[in-house]
Amino acid sequence: MTARADPAPYRALVHPPGTRRIEVIDQRALPHVNTTIRIGTADVAALAIRRMWVRGAPLIGAVGAYGLALALDADASDAALEKAHRALDATRPTAVNLRWALDRVRAAVAALPAGERADAAWREADAIATEDMAINRAIGDHGLGLLRELAAKRSGPIRVMTHCNAGALATCGWGTATAPLFLAHAEGIALHVFVSETRPRLQGANLTAWELRQRGIPHTLFVDGASGLLMQRRDVDIILVGADRVARNGDVCNKIGTYDKALAAADNGVPFYVALPSPTFDPALASGSAIPIETRESDEILSVAGSDEYGHTAKVSISPSGTLAVNYAFDVTPARLVTGLITERGVAPASEAGIGRLFPERMG
Amino acid sequence: MTARADPAPYRALVHPPGTRRIEVIDQRALPHVNTTIRIGTADVAALAIRRMWVRGAPLIGAVGAYGLALALDADASDAALEKAHRALDATRPTAVNLRWALDRVRAAVAALPAGERADAAWREADAIATEDMAINRAIGDHGLGLLRELAAKRSGPIRVMTHCNAGALATCGWGTATAPLFLAHAEGIALHVFVSETRPRLQGANLTAWELRQRGIPHTLFVDGASGLLMQRRDVDIILVGADRVARNGDVCNKIGTYDKALAAADNGVPFYVALPSPTFDPALASGSAIPIETRESDEILSVAGSDEYGHTAKVSISPSGTLAVNYAFDVTPARLVTGLITERGVAPASEAGIGRLFPERMG
Repeated sequence: MTARADPAPYRALVHPPGTRRIEVIDQRALPHVNTTIRIGTADVAALAIRRMWVRGAPLIGAVGAYGLALALDADASDAALEKAHRALDATRPTAVNLRWALDRVRAAVAALPAGERADAAWREADAIATEDMAINRAIGDHGLGLLRELAAKRSGPIRVMTHCNAGALATCGWGTATAPLFLAHAEGIALHVFVSETRPRLQGANLTAWELRQRGIPHTLFVDGASGLLMQRRDVDIILVGADRVARNGDVCNKIGTYDKALAAADNGVPFYVALPSPTFDPALASGSAIPIETRESDEILSVAGSDEYGHTAKVSISPSGTLAVNYAFDVTPARLVTGLITERGVAPASEAGIGRLFPERMG
Repeated sequence: MTARADPAPYRALVHPPGTRRIEVIDQRALPHVNTTIRIGTADVAALAIRRMWVRGAPLIGAVGAYGLALALDADASDAALEKAHRALDATRPTAVNLRWALDRVRAAVAALPAGERADAAWREADAIATEDMAINRAIGDHGLGLLRELAAKRSGPIRVMTHCNAGALATCGWGTATAPLFLAHAEGIALHVFVSETRPRLQGANLTAWELRQRGIPHTLFVDGASGLLMQRRDVDIILVGADRVARNGDVCNKIGTYDKALAAADNGVPFYVALPSPTFDPALASGSAIPIETRESDEILSVAGSDEYGHTAKVSISPSGTLAVNYAFDVTPARLVTGLITERGVAPASEAGIGRLFPERMG
């Protein structure tokens, strides 16, 4: 194995061969503690997704798939299959990968006798995870092409802005938006990554900064509100973000704050790319306005979790007691602000025609 | 005194009559603790500004003016005057009000015999503070006109987005961006204020939410990255922010994150107004690109301060140990994105001509 073939020194999701469980990194504890949770029932899989022990559109798709396999281990009846599908699908509404993965596992097992369903579900979930890693790698290669072009035009490091975490921790392998960075770094292209902290849950500060540190890629953390200034200052050469759902017309639903960055990119002529695996496309939706935007608990805004001076996990309240907050987890970036979509089949314009050229079978 | 004539149940800065000291609210401790600090030397005044016990362009101007008076109490020589002016001016670089107030006090005392300088400086500082309150009130009246127009067109509450704190805590009286809100609320216009938390120092969550709560004005806290989505959702009727310096051409320097909001406002047709007292104009600068942007300590980004579960002040670290961060405190919103400037003499277009019509004596 070369360095380039190894996606990460850590894996967000592992299915130990021969077992009927999965192991995931507890992403609530990062970056301070790196600990693994075993998931052995569908209920715990649902909890892991809902409470965001795991997060990231491709990863929750895979965990959902394994969750359905775990449900069938316990009860492989039609009724149990439907019930588990519904329960897992209800955990988080915005990322379409979850529904896509659940539908795929269900389709793979529905016609089988009950006694064969669980094994088939585990095989299908394994296939989803393995394919995700290969998709990540292909996204990485296509994105790497863009970074090589930038490197050829610049003497210093390429300055990349990210948002949230579309890293290895959001997938089964290399990540989506991070895959090009990891490959570029491995082949010696100098990078400097500007990492937005991504309030409220701070996935940039907690996860992306941690991932870049694991690989020794230079990076600087900044607050979400500084996105525009950094571009005004000409400190950013390219923006690479992930996606939770992309509509037929190329509108991109992603972590809250993505749209603000896309506006600043357009105002300052900075290329704005979205990296996504094809399961993130939702051709059933004509435009982004139909994407359901998840609303989460106010407490994610009213308090901030971190590590206290003794290294213990702690939470501090930042507003007057009784303050109301609104916590939309995602926003929609109109296709007109997106320079291109980086997929496993290449880079496409963010439009129905662009997506259709690369994925004709999805747009029928 | 009617309710309308009373700027606030709290005052960011008080000069107790007959004393040679000022008293300020310690804004580091809000919203959890409301405590007052006595400032009796120029060194402590400088520390209060630098460490942000007090903040807000008009308020640091007034505290700077009193700081110079305190310096002259100790030593009224030419050398001491210049030294104190320099030391106070160096505390924070971006807001021009500080320099303006220091220059004004120096000009008022420079020609006097040393023995008369300190008393004259205290009188001039008092005049600056008193005028600031009157200016706030006039800004409030002009902004109120805009809110009345919106109220006439809408049945529900007017939905106002704010950023950072341009409130009573940023001034000697009513605040700048908040003055129209306080007056509108007092005359029965229904409001709902969307308060951006304003990382890294959380002046929205800590200060603006606290001020609105003191007055019973309904409000909702949101993370900075949600600005664009809230406008996409048509949840915002008007944006009102303050300013730290406004260049001759109408470019607005204000708290980091302001530019991102202005971009989203323009993209969604939401009127974007900047409330400022005329000392915030800097006609010496042709455009915003010449405004010095303050860079503060990384620690403001790497950790978050708040109140722990026992009600004690605590700080939590949010990123891997050793992470680098960049902390620009302000950004520049181009005049083209500003619907209007709300000043003590009325509402002006954000342009040299617009400013010149209201303040011809400043634009000579």
